[in-house]
Amino acid sequence: MKGKKKMETFTSSIAFDRRLYKQDIDGSVAHTKMLVKQGIIDEKDGERIVGGLGEIEGEIDSGQFPFREDLEDIHMNIEARLIDKIGAAGGRMHAARSRNDQVAVDMRMWVRDETNEILGLIMTLQRTLVHLSERYKDVVLPGYTHGQQAQPILFAHYLLAHFYALCRDFDRFLDCSSRVNISPLGSCALAGTSLPIDRSYTAKALGFDRPCENALDGVSDRDFVIETIGCCAISQMHLSRLCDDIVTYATEEFGFVALPTPGGSSIMPQKQNPDVAELVRGETGRVYGDLMAILTTMKSLSLSYNKDMQADKRPLFDAIDTLKGSLGAVDGMLLGLGVNEARMRSAISPHTLATDLAERLTVKVPFRVAHGIVREIVSYCREMGKEAGELSLSELEAIAPDIDWAGVDLAIDVDRSVASKRSYGGTSPGEINRSLKMAKTILKEEAGRLPPLD
Amino acid sequence: MKGKKKMETFTSSIAFDRRLYKQDIDGSVAHTKMLVKQGIIDEKDGERIVGGLGEIEGEIDSGQFPFREDLEDIHMNIEARLIDKIGAAGGRMHAARSRNDQVAVDMRMWVRDETNEILGLIMTLQRTLVHLSERYKDVVLPGYTHGQQAQPILFAHYLLAHFYALCRDFDRFLDCSSRVNISPLGSCALAGTSLPIDRSYTAKALGFDRPCENALDGVSDRDFVIETIGCCAISQMHLSRLCDDIVTYATEEFGFVALPTPGGSSIMPQKQNPDVAELVRGETGRVYGDLMAILTTMKSLSLSYNKDMQADKRPLFDAIDTLKGSLGAVDGMLLGLGVNEARMRSAISPHTLATDLAERLTVKVPFRVAHGIVREIVSYCREMGKEAGELSLSELEAIAPDIDWAGVDLAIDVDRSVASKRSYGGTSPGEINRSLKMAKTILKEEAGRLPPLD
Amino acid sequence: MKGKKKMETFTSSIAFDRRLYKQDIDGSVAHTKMLVKQGIIDEKDGERIVGGLGEIEGEIDSGQFPFREDLEDIHMNIEARLIDKIGAAGGRMHAARSRNDQVAVDMRMWVRDETNEILGLIMTLQRTLVHLSERYKDVVLPGYTHGQQAQPILFAHYLLAHFYALCRDFDRFLDCSSRVNISPLGSCALAGTSLPIDRSYTAKALGFDRPCENALDGVSDRDFVIETIGCCAISQMHLSRLCDDIVTYATEEFGFVALPTPGGSSIMPQKQNPDVAELVRGETGRVYGDLMAILTTMKSLSLSYNKDMQADKRPLFDAIDTLKGSLGAVDGMLLGLGVNEARMRSAISPHTLATDLAERLTVKVPFRVAHGIVREIVSYCREMGKEAGELSLSELEAIAPDIDWAGVDLAIDVDRSVASKRSYGGTSPGEINRSLKMAKTILKEEAGRLPPLD
Amino acid sequence: MKGKKKMETFTSSIAFDRRLYKQDIDGSVAHTKMLVKQGIIDEKDGERIVGGLGEIEGEIDSGQFPFREDLEDIHMNIEARLIDKIGAAGGRMHAARSRNDQVAVDMRMWVRDETNEILGLIMTLQRTLVHLSERYKDVVLPGYTHGQQAQPILFAHYLLAHFYALCRDFDRFLDCSSRVNISPLGSCALAGTSLPIDRSYTAKALGFDRPCENALDGVSDRDFVIETIGCCAISQMHLSRLCDDIVTYATEEFGFVALPTPGGSSIMPQKQNPDVAELVRGETGRVYGDLMAILTTMKSLSLSYNKDMQADKRPLFDAIDTLKGSLGAVDGMLLGLGVNEARMRSAISPHTLATDLAERLTVKVPFRVAHGIVREIVSYCREMGKEAGELSLSELEAIAPDIDWAGVDLAIDVDRSVASKRSYGGTSPGEINRSLKMAKTILKEEAGRLPPLD
Repeated sequence: MKGKKKMETFTSSIAFDRRLYKQDIDGSVAHTKMLVKQGIIDEKDGERIVGGLGEIEGEIDSGQFPFREDLEDIHMNIEARLIDKIGAAGGRMHAARSRNDQVAVDMRMWVRDETNEILGLIMTLQRTLVHLSERYKDVVLPGYTHGQQAQPILFAHYLLAHFYALCRDFDRFLDCSSRVNISPLGSCALAGTSLPIDRSYTAKALGFDRPCENALDGVSDRDFVIETIGCCAISQMHLSRLCDDIVTYATEEFGFVALPTPGGSSIMPQKQNPDVAELVRGETGRVYGDLMAILTTMKSLSLSYNKDMQADKRPLFDAIDTLKGSLGAVDGMLLGLGVNEARMRSAISPHTLATDLAERLTVKVPFRVAHGIVREIVSYCREMGKEAGELSLSELEAIAPDIDWAGVDLAIDVDRSVASKRSYGGTSPGEINRSLKMAKTILKEEAGRLPPLD
Repeated sequence: MKGKKKMETFTSSIAFDRRLYKQDIDGSVAHTKMLVKQGIIDEKDGERIVGGLGEIEGEIDSGQFPFREDLEDIHMNIEARLIDKIGAAGGRMHAARSRNDQVAVDMRMWVRDETNEILGLIMTLQRTLVHLSERYKDVVLPGYTHGQQAQPILFAHYLLAHFYALCRDFDRFLDCSSRVNISPLGSCALAGTSLPIDRSYTAKALGFDRPCENALDGVSDRDFVIETIGCCAISQMHLSRLCDDIVTYATEEFGFVALPTPGGSSIMPQKQNPDVAELVRGETGRVYGDLMAILTTMKSLSLSYNKDMQADKRPLFDAIDTLKGSLGAVDGMLLGLGVNEARMRSAISPHTLATDLAERLTVKVPFRVAHGIVREIVSYCREMGKEAGELSLSELEAIAPDIDWAGVDLAIDVDRSVASKRSYGGTSPGEINRSLKMAKTILKEEAGRLPPLD
Repeated sequence: MKGKKKMETFTSSIAFDRRLYKQDIDGSVAHTKMLVKQGIIDEKDGERIVGGLGEIEGEIDSGQFPFREDLEDIHMNIEARLIDKIGAAGGRMHAARSRNDQVAVDMRMWVRDETNEILGLIMTLQRTLVHLSERYKDVVLPGYTHGQQAQPILFAHYLLAHFYALCRDFDRFLDCSSRVNISPLGSCALAGTSLPIDRSYTAKALGFDRPCENALDGVSDRDFVIETIGCCAISQMHLSRLCDDIVTYATEEFGFVALPTPGGSSIMPQKQNPDVAELVRGETGRVYGDLMAILTTMKSLSLSYNKDMQADKRPLFDAIDTLKGSLGAVDGMLLGLGVNEARMRSAISPHTLATDLAERLTVKVPFRVAHGIVREIVSYCREMGKEAGELSLSELEAIAPDIDWAGVDLAIDVDRSVASKRSYGGTSPGEINRSLKMAKTILKEEAGRLPPLD
Repeated sequence: MKGKKKMETFTSSIAFDRRLYKQDIDGSVAHTKMLVKQGIIDEKDGERIVGGLGEIEGEIDSGQFPFREDLEDIHMNIEARLIDKIGAAGGRMHAARSRNDQVAVDMRMWVRDETNEILGLIMTLQRTLVHLSERYKDVVLPGYTHGQQAQPILFAHYLLAHFYALCRDFDRFLDCSSRVNISPLGSCALAGTSLPIDRSYTAKALGFDRPCENALDGVSDRDFVIETIGCCAISQMHLSRLCDDIVTYATEEFGFVALPTPGGSSIMPQKQNPDVAELVRGETGRVYGDLMAILTTMKSLSLSYNKDMQADKRPLFDAIDTLKGSLGAVDGMLLGLGVNEARMRSAISPHTLATDLAERLTVKVPFRVAHGIVREIVSYCREMGKEAGELSLSELEAIAPDIDWAGVDLAIDVDRSVASKRSYGGTSPGEINRSLKMAKTILKEEAGRLPPLD
């Protein structure tokens, strides 16, 4: 007995799949209306079912619904409650349907709704990045490769790099949603049904693009879960990279930024911790784990539906909750970010201008040769405490006797360096302005591509 | 000294990135032509560079190229060889470029080429599935849920389920390729360049859709690697499911199929092993691992390029090699598959017809009630060794006295069951024919959507 | 404001770390007693703290505790409540401690307690396997390699294979626990403390083997979480393999076993689904995902504590809950398993005896030659519908003329085959008896190695 | 034909499993001697087999062995070559053995050998950490939590934290090896054998602790692969954390360390990149991926051997190669590390001494109150540009009027702070000395626990 109860708890999913109740009810309403339209159940029964489902939705909304673990899942809980309410007619609703297609259609609607929220959150964060890029248009800081200062860049160049990464996230979720928004309803167990249903009707009523083509595929397929979690994983990875930079920039040693609502330490009174940035970074692990979980569950799984697939929900819910929380938290963090412009500028080492020198020398010698000469110039300047523009002709000739130094201008500073990067997508103010305009255009286009709300 | 050599071996990538040589040379040729066009290097140097690169390609093609580990990677090996061949002018090629954008452009071209091959292999396998669906149009077998016989289906219904799963793979790779086919060339280290380059020219010359919008993003982004491996992982998962069914169907106990080129046993003389199916299933693990590898590497990685990203190549190469090998091997396996039609049909338990009975009863009682009655009918039939259609009115009334059994026909057989599943996407012959036509239309459309060859 | 609330929710962990409350209170009590002993706080305050903590434990036990999200975590909730109860003296408890070592000590105690439960569950399942091995001592079934029948084996041989796999799980968890059971308490933030604490005292009071050696390592280390989840992953994998076989053996086609409390189908009245076996198999994905999650979170994380590490809890809790649930459910499933002995025996193909023939021929010819000859004998027998023992001398000579067939006995049946496998660990009844005895010895030893209960 | 060749290439493993040749030959030699001892083959044949295998080992050592893909794997390649050399008697070697137990025994020996090398490399790195701890005994630097300066610590405290993490790695690999070092040889296909073999003899001859208990488990088990890769993953994670700190410490902004053999930039002449540290960090992804790969492959895999398990080798080889390379490279990097002591010391913010102040105040007020007061003192000091020790009684009373400030000494500096951390495992010089002694003791013990060489 106790063992049986334990197994019931083990196999029951109502503790987590109750979250799908709105989708489940919407699906049942559309299915019922179709059954009425097709003459499979009569109008009166149809009305009572739809009415009963409405009441049930209200009960769940208000926390009054009596969930029962022994009824295993949200579908059976709702159906049993409906039969309680309206009698045996409630049992007509499940004609031409199995839990296999029912749960698939519920999950697809849920994913669709959540994807739309994520698209909105991505756009919000993108807007913040554009906003900050404009506010800090003139701010320069060191750009890094290998964690080492590489070349000076505009802070807007840095922020827009994240903007464009988020564009890919937006596109990826949207591409994915074209594979999410297909209705499996009416696939029944795996073979379709002998009852004269109209799958296009329910597909349309529920906002799907079309019914799926093959009933067996309809109940076996969880690609839409995997691909959605995959999109979450990449997007969360983007946030983790931004957050890692924020943690670094917030160190005493860098001092580039100050954080808005910092976490305190329980032992160290002076601490101001970058909690949000750290947590977003840390929770990336769990989103990756969610992806691995669902991939593993689906691997080598015989067609069609197997109970193994019940394990699809928790990774999906967790990945989406985590990404949504992270997108919002990063947006809040950025909006409150203090930017220490002076510190950013003063941190730039003069040696980051070496590439500029090398590029100037390419009019005289091959780039690879210029690269070698500048390496020596930099080394000489480091030793002598000079800047390249201060070197005399004789000093230059001592370093590289074969070059005709006449007309070579090695005077360079951070602003001239930045201003010179006029190549498409470069960090010069002109390019940044162009890029900002494009970003705004993209934001408008994204808004136009958002799926229509219910 | 020995330690230094060890570290050189550790950090060198030439052992695996040499695979990018064609893309690297194509990229350098386009870049050089652009530099000439823009007046950054003169025509004569340009011609010598392009000529030298052509020779080098020949050397590598024919296995004559002297790879050097101390030159670290394919880019420096080729450049050093070029300078050997044509002198210092070879060093002009690297103006307005860094290895950061160079390796990114090489990898994108490589991924694009491999994606095209994969799209072709998917279509080939889809064609085989359509071909087999037509050949075995009349074959019925048990459809399974939870590993248990559920309802009889046509074998074509089963095969087409895999066809439609592969459609999603095709679409997914194609969607992904729109994010692959963007040129980072000219992003240079991360800031762009002061030299007057034309990024649109190189993008176009190399077959890219457009140059990327932000130089920092251009060298930091490895989404295209992750997303491509993600596509491989889902596709390989699809194959693993098909293969798992094949292994089951090939057991003595099922006996549904016989395999073409089976593996023998070193100890057991009678064994005929489903090696290909097992191996495809087993190697799914490595493709998943490749996805986890690149996701982990990119997590929390400061913008822009870091040497960590050198670890992107082996997972990418492995995932693509494995999927390509698997698609080909599965195709070969299916083409040689022996199908035991008699065994498939005779395996179908009469109890798989229970759902049909329940659906017939829905004209009399709610489906949920019908479901309960049929459960009792099945149980009674099992006990008595009868079929439902043989039950007398009194037997039926004993089971369910409240039903008006007049006019209820419970006679059913496998073929009638299958034929009745006329709902859209169902397993009836008519629907399968419609679905086959659609599959052929899709194959044509896919061919039309294939990217143009070079 | 709303944004601030959102970030609070995002960074708060009280929703899940409340689960550590008993460990947190035990840790605080031991710490407080040590502070009293060392004269850092006076006895009266110590008593009030310990008393207050006892009341708080009662409140949480009975669901009366007022959890507050704005207090972030279980540690601050308890401390704040303590100060509410006994005044500012409650704030003395946190001397010579930071949340960094506090949460680490809590988690280690929690893992230790859960590991002990898991060890017990493993032993229970092992006992069941021994019990079933004895009950089904005489049952033979086909042994499989590559999913193909290989050689006949005793069912006890199969069950004991799982027994010995679980031995490794037991050992692995126990080995791991030697790295879990080290006290970080008193590491404080990362540097230790200037207060005269006694770390050995708290370590001993809390049942730890010893205090950790380095305070910085003490707060940075999450190996114990990773290794524990790793142990869960391997153990869950073992269960997934057993369950996969059960699903196969429960098919109509195999029919070797019948399942105890099967799940029904919502559409198909006849279905009896192996829900537990499927679910255990499916949830393996999530345990793997948990492992990947924590590994990813810890990767490249600067010493010492970072907020990222808050993401260690949910994967840990989930992995342990899932394994515990699975161990119990599998045990229940096995206890209720119906074994169809006749079906198992009759399924054995005569061709599985081929290896026996080859081994008999090794007295005449090299094994590799014998292997080839038996392959031909099997093929001939298949064609002629004969068994090897029935072949005449002339038939044998026709197959292999070079062998002196005199005295070669090819008569063989399943029982003789099984009985002949007398090599150590082989499937003969004698070896199985020996192995069962050893299994019981091991079970006794395991019981002796269980850590003492509190 | 072409298709067949393709499938042969797909299923063949000789390209990578040739790496096991020494283990395969050792195993065959031991097996053959046992067969002779047991009278299963005669002495003369035994001698010819052993002699032939010796020749083959020489051929492979010297690169002369004619590997054939059509012979699939290393086992069949060697056996076929042996038969070429000594005739059909070579075929006697495979009596009482299948490839299932053969490959398992080969891999276990290989893992054992590689584990021993890893144990040695771990000890080497530990010695380097001890060596550096002694060299930089007096160096102080900021200790960090949340990436923020927390408290000053000795550099030796930091280095020893990594030493103790490596102790766990050492122990973990050693614990694991007790499960690796079990001989499956003689398990044959899965049932054992009818031939009178002596499994203890071969186990002993090959250096195993004992033969495995159950033949079916013997050929089904890959725990030893998973657990070994799991050990690699945790150890590589440790290295990634050290390397991440090194990358940070090597930035211009921190400037704590300078790197030995830095990588240059192809475009930026001034760059000195921390290549080794980055690459070790990046390749962590692949080791994690290897773990996920093998876990996935083994999930839900029916007992006993399946071809899927051929996919165990590449992840295993890669994980071990990567960890070995990384351990060596990190050791080299540390040995060449330049430490900028002045920069480390001067970076320490005075506010890191706040915890010391709070601890001093705990004699007066509860720690939590002290924590609040010091937060205000720090804030006041920041504003006034003062240090806590300089504050007058009236200033202190203005901040916290309720405290009796008499006798409270707030004068503190970095060295006093560090010196005061005398708790066990703390950062005071005395504790560090004790810890160093313990580290040396551990190193000696580790050496004593190393498995004996062949």
